[in-house]
Amino acid sequence: MEISNSERAKVLIQALPYIQKHAGRTIVVKYGGNAMVNEDLKFAVMSDIVLMQLVGINVVVVHGGGPEIGSMLKKIGKESRFVNGMRVTDAETAQIVQMVLAGKVNKDLVQLLQRHNGRAVGLCGLDGNMLSAKKLISDEDLGFVGEITKVNTEIIVSATKNGYIPVVATVAGGENGEVYNINADIAASRIAAELGAEKLILMTDVRGLLRDKDDDSSIISVVNVSEVPKLQNDGVIGGGMIPKVNCCVEAVRRGVKRAHIIDGRIPHSILIEIFSDEGIGTMFC
Amino acid sequence: MEISNSERAKVLIQALPYIQKHAGRTIVVKYGGNAMVNEDLKFAVMSDIVLMQLVGINVVVVHGGGPEIGSMLKKIGKESRFVNGMRVTDAETAQIVQMVLAGKVNKDLVQLLQRHNGRAVGLCGLDGNMLSAKKLISDEDLGFVGEITKVNTEIIVSATKNGYIPVVATVAGGENGEVYNINADIAASRIAAELGAEKLILMTDVRGLLRDKDDDSSIISVVNVSEVPKLQNDGVIGGGMIPKVNCCVEAVRRGVKRAHIIDGRIPHSILIEIFSDEGIGTMFC
Amino acid sequence: MEISNSERAKVLIQALPYIQKHAGRTIVVKYGGNAMVNEDLKFAVMSDIVLMQLVGINVVVVHGGGPEIGSMLKKIGKESRFVNGMRVTDAETAQIVQMVLAGKVNKDLVQLLQRHNGRAVGLCGLDGNMLSAKKLISDEDLGFVGEITKVNTEIIVSATKNGYIPVVATVAGGENGEVYNINADIAASRIAAELGAEKLILMTDVRGLLRDKDDDSSIISVVNVSEVPKLQNDGVIGGGMIPKVNCCVEAVRRGVKRAHIIDGRIPHSILIEIFSDEGIGTMFC
Amino acid sequence: MEISNSERAKVLIQALPYIQKHAGRTIVVKYGGNAMVNEDLKFAVMSDIVLMQLVGINVVVVHGGGPEIGSMLKKIGKESRFVNGMRVTDAETAQIVQMVLAGKVNKDLVQLLQRHNGRAVGLCGLDGNMLSAKKLISDEDLGFVGEITKVNTEIIVSATKNGYIPVVATVAGGENGEVYNINADIAASRIAAELGAEKLILMTDVRGLLRDKDDDSSIISVVNVSEVPKLQNDGVIGGGMIPKVNCCVEAVRRGVKRAHIIDGRIPHSILIEIFSDEGIGTMFC
Amino acid sequence: MEISNSERAKVLIQALPYIQKHAGRTIVVKYGGNAMVNEDLKFAVMSDIVLMQLVGINVVVVHGGGPEIGSMLKKIGKESRFVNGMRVTDAETAQIVQMVLAGKVNKDLVQLLQRHNGRAVGLCGLDGNMLSAKKLISDEDLGFVGEITKVNTEIIVSATKNGYIPVVATVAGGENGEVYNINADIAASRIAAELGAEKLILMTDVRGLLRDKDDDSSIISVVNVSEVPKLQNDGVIGGGMIPKVNCCVEAVRRGVKRAHIIDGRIPHSILIEIFSDEGIGTMFC
Amino acid sequence: MEISNSERAKVLIQALPYIQKHAGRTIVVKYGGNAMVNEDLKFAVMSDIVLMQLVGINVVVVHGGGPEIGSMLKKIGKESRFVNGMRVTDAETAQIVQMVLAGKVNKDLVQLLQRHNGRAVGLCGLDGNMLSAKKLISDEDLGFVGEITKVNTEIIVSATKNGYIPVVATVAGGENGEVYNINADIAASRIAAELGAEKLILMTDVRGLLRDKDDDSSIISVVNVSEVPKLQNDGVIGGGMIPKVNCCVEAVRRGVKRAHIIDGRIPHSILIEIFSDEGIGTMFC
Repeated sequence: MEISNSERAKVLIQALPYIQKHAGRTIVVKYGGNAMVNEDLKFAVMSDIVLMQLVGINVVVVHGGGPEIGSMLKKIGKESRFVNGMRVTDAETAQIVQMVLAGKVNKDLVQLLQRHNGRAVGLCGLDGNMLSAKKLISDEDLGFVGEITKVNTEIIVSATKNGYIPVVATVAGGENGEVYNINADIAASRIAAELGAEKLILMTDVRGLLRDKDDDSSIISVVNVSEVPKLQNDGVIGGGMIPKVNCCVEAVRRGVKRAHIIDGRIPHSILIEIFSDEGIGTMFC
Repeated sequence: MEISNSERAKVLIQALPYIQKHAGRTIVVKYGGNAMVNEDLKFAVMSDIVLMQLVGINVVVVHGGGPEIGSMLKKIGKESRFVNGMRVTDAETAQIVQMVLAGKVNKDLVQLLQRHNGRAVGLCGLDGNMLSAKKLISDEDLGFVGEITKVNTEIIVSATKNGYIPVVATVAGGENGEVYNINADIAASRIAAELGAEKLILMTDVRGLLRDKDDDSSIISVVNVSEVPKLQNDGVIGGGMIPKVNCCVEAVRRGVKRAHIIDGRIPHSILIEIFSDEGIGTMFC
Repeated sequence: MEISNSERAKVLIQALPYIQKHAGRTIVVKYGGNAMVNEDLKFAVMSDIVLMQLVGINVVVVHGGGPEIGSMLKKIGKESRFVNGMRVTDAETAQIVQMVLAGKVNKDLVQLLQRHNGRAVGLCGLDGNMLSAKKLISDEDLGFVGEITKVNTEIIVSATKNGYIPVVATVAGGENGEVYNINADIAASRIAAELGAEKLILMTDVRGLLRDKDDDSSIISVVNVSEVPKLQNDGVIGGGMIPKVNCCVEAVRRGVKRAHIIDGRIPHSILIEIFSDEGIGTMFC
Repeated sequence: MEISNSERAKVLIQALPYIQKHAGRTIVVKYGGNAMVNEDLKFAVMSDIVLMQLVGINVVVVHGGGPEIGSMLKKIGKESRFVNGMRVTDAETAQIVQMVLAGKVNKDLVQLLQRHNGRAVGLCGLDGNMLSAKKLISDEDLGFVGEITKVNTEIIVSATKNGYIPVVATVAGGENGEVYNINADIAASRIAAELGAEKLILMTDVRGLLRDKDDDSSIISVVNVSEVPKLQNDGVIGGGMIPKVNCCVEAVRRGVKRAHIIDGRIPHSILIEIFSDEGIGTMFC
Repeated sequence: MEISNSERAKVLIQALPYIQKHAGRTIVVKYGGNAMVNEDLKFAVMSDIVLMQLVGINVVVVHGGGPEIGSMLKKIGKESRFVNGMRVTDAETAQIVQMVLAGKVNKDLVQLLQRHNGRAVGLCGLDGNMLSAKKLISDEDLGFVGEITKVNTEIIVSATKNGYIPVVATVAGGENGEVYNINADIAASRIAAELGAEKLILMTDVRGLLRDKDDDSSIISVVNVSEVPKLQNDGVIGGGMIPKVNCCVEAVRRGVKRAHIIDGRIPHSILIEIFSDEGIGTMFC
Repeated sequence: MEISNSERAKVLIQALPYIQKHAGRTIVVKYGGNAMVNEDLKFAVMSDIVLMQLVGINVVVVHGGGPEIGSMLKKIGKESRFVNGMRVTDAETAQIVQMVLAGKVNKDLVQLLQRHNGRAVGLCGLDGNMLSAKKLISDEDLGFVGEITKVNTEIIVSATKNGYIPVVATVAGGENGEVYNINADIAASRIAAELGAEKLILMTDVRGLLRDKDDDSSIISVVNVSEVPKLQNDGVIGGGMIPKVNCCVEAVRRGVKRAHIIDGRIPHSILIEIFSDEGIGTMFC
C-alpha cells in the first residue's frame, strides 16, 4: 500500500502522546529468538531501537545467542547438552559462550545499530562489575551456569547518559575470577528491576499468552501478576512459557512498571507495543 | 483509509533519518495565514510543533495576527489603512496591535500548545530586549511601523534550554520607549539568522513559487538565492510573493541553511516538509 | 535638600544590613493602584524593583490593571459591571481583560523596567501553565472570573535564575481551554506562598491598617495573623481592606514569612519598607 | 543632619546606575595610611568593602602595615632603617615583617570584615604561590626587599568565586625558600593588572594630585598616563607621589581600566569614588 | 641499602590497596613536636603530606607552635607562664601568639609544602569564621585561652575542593572581636569531627601508649575508646598523655573513624601508619 | 630481601615527583607478548595499570591476542597463514579474530583489572565507531586485514571521565558492515595520537633497541625520531623491530610526546619506565 506524505504526517502525530508518555523513561529489551536470526526482522528491530533512543527513551538491549553458540561448539566438535533447557557448560564451553556472546553477537549488534545511525556500546556482565554470579545449584551439575548475586548498573547508566545504547551480553563474573553463563531473560529482568525501568520487553517466538494454545486469537492481553498462579494451574502457562512468565513476574515484583511478552516474528513488534493503545502480546502488571 | 499498526510502525521508522538529521537543530516557523484561522489547520500546526520539540528540535514560533488586529480595530470603530501592504499605525493603533498580538494571539497559541502537552512561553520583542527598532522611513508616513535595528536572542535561547517553546509576537521597542509594529515575516527571518537556524519556514496561503501562476503543478521546488533576480525579472516572483521571497533570501544570506515558503492550507505541511525527501513548497538555499 | 557625597555614602552603608538580610531571598510585589497610574510614582517603583534585583533579591512583580481594562471596554462601548468588587466577565470581556493585562499593561511594565536597565520578561498565568483555575462559584454568575486551582512556579523560577525579573499578568487557564480573570492580590498571595517567599508586598492607596480611619498617625505597624478576627470584629479591618488583609493572612498561613500592606502613593515605599527598621504600612506575620 | 527614609530611598536609587556599572567587575583596593590607623576610618573602609561585595563587585584588598612593623621592631629593640623610603630588611626583620603583616594586620582585617558580616580570607603572597620575587637590586643592599617576578592569581580568583573577600599581605617567596618584603602599592598594582581589574584604588593620606601643593582645590581629577612625564617635569608629581603615580601608570599600561589615588582620610572615600560621577581624588586612565 | 628499580616498583604496588582504601577520604594531621623542629623530619612530613594529596586523600594540616612562640616572647622580654600545660595569655601575649602562629609558622609550612610541589593555603581560625571561641573558664585566670564554641569548615572544604592543602593555625575569634589561643590538639580533634574525617593523626614525641612506660616494645596498638577509663585507672594513660588521649576519644565519639597517636620522631611515620597493615603508634577506634 | 616500612615510605616519597609529572596526563599502553602469557607478569601489569589510574593518570590499554587466536583457529581445524607477519584473514578467520579478541582476551583483561580493584570497560573498535577501516592493499590478498581510516576517541574519553580504564580490542568496522583485523601496535599508536597522549608504551619481548643485537647492555635509551633512518641504514633497526619503531615514530609525528619500546618480560617494567629517571627500554621523542 502506498501511504501519502499527508497520511504519514498523521501517523507521526498520532504517535505523539505515546512518545510524550515514554520520553525520559527506561525500557529494557530482551532481544532473542527468530528476530535475531531473520535478517529483515533484525533490521526492523535495530531501527525500532534507534528510533526509541531518538525520541528520548533510554533503551537497554540485553541479548542471548543460543544458535550462534551451538554452531561454534559444533565447529570445534563439541556437542551441546541441555538439562531443563539450560546448557551444561564445562570450562571449555564457558569460554566459547563468552567469546561468542561478548565478542561476536554483542559487537555485531553494536555495529548494526550504528549502521542505523545509533550510537552504541557493547558490554558484558564483566564490564564495570555489572553482573556478579555464583554457581547455580541444581540436581544435575550444570558446570558454569550461574545465578546472579548482584547487579551494578553504574556502567549502563553512564553509557546511557553519554548518549550510547548499552548492548549487554549476559556472562557474569564469579568470586574467584571464573565466568558464568547467565540466562538472558533472567538477566534482562534483573537489570530492568535495578534500573527502575518503565518496561521490560521479552521478544519471543510466540504470540503471547494464549488461552487456547492452538488459537492465536485467544491471546490474553493483560495479566495481573496475582493471577499467574491460577493461570499456571489451569495450564494456560506451561512448558517454555513458565520461565518467561517468571521473569516478567519477578521484574514487576521488583518494581518494573510493566513487563511484556511480545512476538518477535512480527516486524516492528516493539514499536507497535510502545506506540499503540492496544499494544501487542501479553502485558504483566 | 485505515492504517494498520504495522504500517504505522513502518511510517515511524521511515521518519527516523529525518529526525536524526534535525535533532538538536533550530527551526523557526513563521505561523500565519489560513493555518491560523481554520481550527483544524490550527490543531494540526500545534501538534506538528509539539512533535518537533519532542524529537529534539529547537522550534521557535513567530506569528502575526492581521485579521484579529483588524477585527479589534473595527470594534473600536477605527478603520485599517494599508500602504504597500503595511498597516498605517497611529499611536492608538500601535497600542491595539501590541494588545492583540502580545496579549491575545500570542497567549492563545501558548495555551493551545500546552493543551497538546507542549511547554510554551509567550514572548514579544520587548521581553528581554529581544527586538529593538526605529521608525521605518517610507514615502508616506506609516506611523509606528518599525524597522529592526537589533536582535537579542538571549531570552529565546534561555527559554529553549529550559524546555519551553518560545512563541514570539513581533512588536519591538524603540529608543525612547515607543513600541513599533514589525512585519512578522521579516522578524522571523532576522531571528532565524541571529539564532543560526537550520531552517526558516514561512507558512503562507500559496503552494510556493509557481512557474505558471495558474498551474499548481508548475511549482519550483528548489531555488538558489542567486537565481532570484532572474526569476523576479521573468515575473515568476511578483506581487505579494516579493516580500516573502526577500525574507527567505535575507535569511539565507545571513546564514540560515534553508528557507521555505510552504502552503499552510495543507494539513501538517510543516511535518511533510521536515520528514520527507521531496518536501513541500519552495526551498531557498 | 542637597545631600553631599559623603552623606550619600553613609546612607548606602546604613542600607548594608538590610541588603545582607534580603540577598538571595524572594519578594513578591503586587503592583497596583495609584502607583501604577501616576508617572512619577511609576518611575520610582520601577527603579525600586531594579535596585532590589541588583542587590541580589529575587523580585517577582504581579500586577492588575483595572483602569486600563475599564477604558478599553469603554472604547468598544461595553459597560463595566461589578459585584462585590469583582468585574462581571462575559466571554468578550474576558478577551479584553487578557489582551489588556497580558498584552498591554504587562509588556509596558517590562519595557519600563528595561529602560531602567533591568532585565525583565512578561508572563501571564497561561505561560508554562503557571496558573490553573476553575469558575468562581458565587451567588450571582460572574462569568469568567476564576478561582486558582493550581500554581506552578517553574517558569518564574527559571526566569529568575536566568537573570530576568518576571512580571506576571493574572489571567489563568481553565480545564477546557477557557481563560479566567483572576484577582491580582489573590494571585500574588498564592504565588508568594508557592515560591516560599520571604515577603509579600501589596501596594495600595491607603496608609495601612488604621486604628482610626481618619487619623493616618493611628497606623498599626505589626499585626499577628491571630489578631485579625478581633480587629475585624472591632471594625478596624473593614470594607475594601477585608480582601487585602485576607490575602496577607492566607500568604502567611501558607508559609510566607511576612506580608505587607503599604502605601503606593508614597514614593519609594517599597525601598523604605525593605531598607529601614521601622518599615512603612502594616506588616502581618 | 537628619535624613528621612524617603531621602534615603532616593539616595539608594541614585546609586543604581553606578552599581549596574560595576557589578561583576574586579576592583583592587590598596588599603593603607591613616585609614588603617584611625578606628573610625577603619570601620568606614570595612563597611565600604563589604557593601561593594554585596552589590556584586569582586573586591580584593591589598594592605601594608608599616607602623605595626615599626612598633614590633621597636619592641624587640631593633631600629628601623630606610633607604629611599624602603625598609632595610635583614633576616630577622624579614621574619618580623612576615609575622606582623601576614599574622597580625592581615588576620585582624579578616576578622573586622567578618564583624561587618562580610566573608573574608587572609592570604599572603606565599599562599598558592601567589607572589614570586627575587632580591631587589639597588645601590645599597636592602636585604630581603623583593621585586616581583611572577603573579599567580588563581588562589584570589578561587576565593572570590567561593564568596570570600581576599585580603592580601604582601610578602613573597623566593626561589630558594627565602621570603621577601614587597612594597604593597606595587603588589596591588601587579595583582590588579593580572586580574584584569576594572579599577585599582590606592588609599593615601593626600587629596590626590595637586597643581599647587598648598591648595587642595587645585586637585587634578583626571590624568591621562601619557601626560605623566610632563607633570613630573613640571614638578606637579614629586616626592612621595612619584612611586604612587608609577604604580598607577604601570597598572593602566598592563590593562587596568582606571587607577585612582584617593584620600583615605575622608570617610567612605572609596564609595564616593565608585558611586558618584565626579569621584574623588585623581584618576589615571 | 640500595633498592633496585624493580624492588621500588614492588613497593609501590604493595601500597596500592592502602591508596585505594583512603582515596577520597579526609585525614586531619595535627603536626607538632619534634617533627616540627628537626629539619630532616620536617622535610619528611611535608613530602608525606604532598604524597597523600596526590593519591587523592583530602589532607588537612593543623599545627601548634609552642617553641617559636616562646622564643618570640623571650625576644620582647616577656616570660612564658604555664598552668596545667596551658600558656597564661595576656593581651600582648595573645597578639604574639597570633602573629607567630598565623604569620610565621603557618605561612612557613605553606611555603615548604609548595617547595615540595604541593599547593597549599595558610588559614587560621579567623578566616571564613572557621573557629569561634569563648574564654576558657578555669581555676586560675588564663587570659585569652579559648574554648571552641563553633567550628565552620566551609573554608577548609572549599580549599580542598579547589586543590589546596589547608594548613590551619589555631587561633579563634571571640564574640567581641577578641582573639583566643586554642590548644592545637583539641582544634584538630574538633575540625576532624566536623569534617567527618576518616582519621585524626596526632604527631607526638612518644611511641604511643605503652603498657610499661620504660619499654617501647610494650606499645598498645589498638584501643577501643571504651577501654580508656580502665587504662587511665591502671596508670597506663597518665601525665601528658591524658589530654592527647582525650582528644582522640572525643574525635571518635564525634564520628571520626579512627584517631592515632604516632611518633613524629620516626621519619615518615604518617605514611607508615597509612600504608601498612600493622601501622605505627596507638590507634583509638 | 626484606624491605622495612621505613624504607617503603622512602620509596613512595621518591616516586612523588614522577606522580606529580604524570597526574592528569594520558598514557596508552599496548599490552602484548610474553607479559600477556605469563601469569605472574600478567598480574604485575594489571597492578601497574590500576596504580597508574589511582595516582591520576588516564591509562588506556590496547591489546592484541595472537596466541589465543592461533589456538582457537587450531581448535576449529584451520591453519594460520602469515604474509610479512600479518595473518591472512578470510571471512571465517575474521569472525574468530573478533570473537577471541573482543569476547575473550578483552573481557578477561577487564575482569583481571577489576580483581585488582580497578574499574574497567572492554571496548573494541566497533563500539562508538571508535575505529573505521578499509581493506589493506598489499601484494598478496590478506583478506580482512584493515588499514585505519578514522579514529574517534569519544567513547574512550567518556569511559576515562567516568572513572573506567578503557581496554581496547583492535577490530575495526568497514564501510559496508564488514569487520577488519587491525594490527594492535598501529591501533595503539593512532589512538595515542588522537588522544594527544603524553606517552605510548609498547610492551615487547625485547630489551629495546640494541646497538649490538647480542649484547643487552648496548641498549639505546633515547632516540630522536630524526635519527631513525640512519639507524635503519646501519641495521640497528631491523627485522621485527621495524614496524614497532614505525609505530613509535608515527605516534611522535602525530603529537605524542614520547613513545617507548619496553621489555614486558621484566616485572613492572611500565612502573619502572614511569617512576624512574633512567626509565627502561628505548624512548623515541
